[in-house]
Amino acid sequence: MSDVKAALALIKRGAEELLVEEELVERLQSGRSLRVKAGFDPTAPDLHLGHTVLINKLRHFQELGHSVLFLIGDFTGMIGDPSGKNSTRPPLTREQIAGNARTYQEQVFKILDPERTEICFNSTWMEPLGAAGMIRLASHHTVARMLERDDFAKRYSGGQSIAIHEFLYPLCQGYDSVAMQADVELGGTDQKFNLLVGRELQRHYGQPAQCVLTMPLLEGLDGVNKMSKSLGNYIGIAEPAREIFGKTMSVSDDLMWRYFELLSFRSSDDIAGLRQEVEAGRNPRDVKVMLAMELVARFHDLRAAEEARAEFEARFQRGMLPDDLPEVAVQVGQHGLPIVQVLKQAGLTGSTSESIRMIDQGAVRLDGDRVEDKGLVLKGGRTVVMQVGKRRFASVVLS
Amino acid sequence: MSDVKAALALIKRGAEELLVEEELVERLQSGRSLRVKAGFDPTAPDLHLGHTVLINKLRHFQELGHSVLFLIGDFTGMIGDPSGKNSTRPPLTREQIAGNARTYQEQVFKILDPERTEICFNSTWMEPLGAAGMIRLASHHTVARMLERDDFAKRYSGGQSIAIHEFLYPLCQGYDSVAMQADVELGGTDQKFNLLVGRELQRHYGQPAQCVLTMPLLEGLDGVNKMSKSLGNYIGIAEPAREIFGKTMSVSDDLMWRYFELLSFRSSDDIAGLRQEVEAGRNPRDVKVMLAMELVARFHDLRAAEEARAEFEARFQRGMLPDDLPEVAVQVGQHGLPIVQVLKQAGLTGSTSESIRMIDQGAVRLDGDRVEDKGLVLKGGRTVVMQVGKRRFASVVLS
Repeated sequence: MSDVKAALALIKRGAEELLVEEELVERLQSGRSLRVKAGFDPTAPDLHLGHTVLINKLRHFQELGHSVLFLIGDFTGMIGDPSGKNSTRPPLTREQIAGNARTYQEQVFKILDPERTEICFNSTWMEPLGAAGMIRLASHHTVARMLERDDFAKRYSGGQSIAIHEFLYPLCQGYDSVAMQADVELGGTDQKFNLLVGRELQRHYGQPAQCVLTMPLLEGLDGVNKMSKSLGNYIGIAEPAREIFGKTMSVSDDLMWRYFELLSFRSSDDIAGLRQEVEAGRNPRDVKVMLAMELVARFHDLRAAEEARAEFEARFQRGMLPDDLPEVAVQVGQHGLPIVQVLKQAGLTGSTSESIRMIDQGAVRLDGDRVEDKGLVLKGGRTVVMQVGKRRFASVVLS
Repeated sequence: MSDVKAALALIKRGAEELLVEEELVERLQSGRSLRVKAGFDPTAPDLHLGHTVLINKLRHFQELGHSVLFLIGDFTGMIGDPSGKNSTRPPLTREQIAGNARTYQEQVFKILDPERTEICFNSTWMEPLGAAGMIRLASHHTVARMLERDDFAKRYSGGQSIAIHEFLYPLCQGYDSVAMQADVELGGTDQKFNLLVGRELQRHYGQPAQCVLTMPLLEGLDGVNKMSKSLGNYIGIAEPAREIFGKTMSVSDDLMWRYFELLSFRSSDDIAGLRQEVEAGRNPRDVKVMLAMELVARFHDLRAAEEARAEFEARFQRGMLPDDLPEVAVQVGQHGLPIVQVLKQAGLTGSTSESIRMIDQGAVRLDGDRVEDKGLVLKGGRTVVMQVGKRRFASVVLS
């Protein structure tokens, strides 16, 4: 019984919502290995830490002895995703999907245990359904209920068109749960509706309804927007060790704890201990280094992590950074801002012409590196350490 | 050019709406044999004259040299029709559908020319579509446009549920037109929306959009409600000659002209001539006999028609009916009304006990036949001739 309690605590760590807790407790008490499903796009995986929040949670289930069903939505992929409001993307070929599936495996097995992971493709059961099966599937849900989904409701009332096949997608996703006999399905908070459709369809097909666990969307480096490639505020898991390390070091001391909760494999107790130490006066930067090391080690190895740390520290020692950097926010807009302007707006120079002169003199450093390009444009979504001469420093939050 | 004009006049005879007339004129001018589609349920065909309105129109096209594509919706049939508001009917087996198709052919070839008729089954092209094809098909229409359809709009705003597969049916029907490369599609007025979906889908698939011809719903024997089996106001084409004859004779003089327009194969000029004769004083009953004869001859043969007429006349001569029967309306309600009450309400007896007495004396006739069963209950939806004794007569409209 206390085992189940501990398991539940791990499962709920960092999670947004668990439906229905009592049902999950029952299944955990049964002692059998649960089938834990999560679905992924078959598009080229270019995973960043935001994606790994879900994968880490799958790992938690594996640590508890359960099986992960890693579903690649290849059936969906061959049609082209309709759920985005943008134009339908071109369908993928079978070869592209197979290639992407391989890349997925390479990437996710840095987190998941291959022994407890089954990679599934939903074309396996969706294709045999046939046109008639698809119609039968569509008979299990109503238009009104579908229009209750937040995004559909907004688009419908706002006069934006919804193509009819967009209604079929939640049903396909739900049918995946039926075919996979999922005990639990994980997804982002934006997936809640679709995950609940799975519950209903399973009941329709005489199965116990899956439990649904939603995970929050991870904030990006800016601490405000969700991590996304298009916002530039991300840490890609395939990035060089130095980048992962440096970007992790750039997050604010607050956001660091969020990242610990959702990204670190340390136990909750460990993390609580670190937090107490920082509150008692330990430099948060030391703790941030531990997080950065962990992440680099996960996606590269321990040696790369050590090197990245050494390099990072050397760079900043060269710059002789003070312990307490003043933090300044600079809005760089959608297209970024030239460094000469960023320096001025951050109060590190008095004018853009002084910025130019200081760069010419080799007196400007960005994250410890000397800046030589006066035309350098800085994009938003990250925090950088800027230095002018020997005494002017700032941690500049670019947004 | 005058050929096209005459063709157009025949096509538009009795029709509700033609969309788009200019497009049809163009196709008629091309001189080629057009592909004229009409879809039918694969359920057991128990056709009544209401159904033949559409089939007669197909015959008009054949008379003009065009080809009829008689579509049996077997794909739909194997799923069960969702469009009714009642519970979904049980799916048909392949064997049942094949049997029904044979019965259809037996029945419709009493009207259509087999040489110019192609029987099609939509499973031929719907099954190969597959689940993915069905989703792609669904991508060609929007939820908002579908909800504009009258019945959907009413159900949605009235809080009645619409299952999602009901949205797929108009698309399947439309895709039939694509697969069949239909030039024209015929349907009842209630089919207009679905027929127009066919136009759109054909455009999507790079075909010229079919012309759409809607036919009115035929009024039943009561002259008020549409002819339907459940209302009991129908003439089945498989009914005995005597029934077809007698029921036709029971329609009102007004409704008779409507039946001539939609059911008779006489030319419009012929019918106009008959109408003039009646206006000039000819007994409408003589003209009604011509219609009754034509219908019996079509669904049985000329000899059966002659016999039915002779028998009908003999029965009424026995009853010595006057030429001008007073017409009385009696509401019999949903479950019908005992004849003893109908007689009283029609003013043919002074009380139900007089009704009983007159029946006991053998003095009551119904459509010329002596009534012996005092418990007889008369249902609504038809007109009967009732007679009490030698002098009391009425044409009683049961509603």
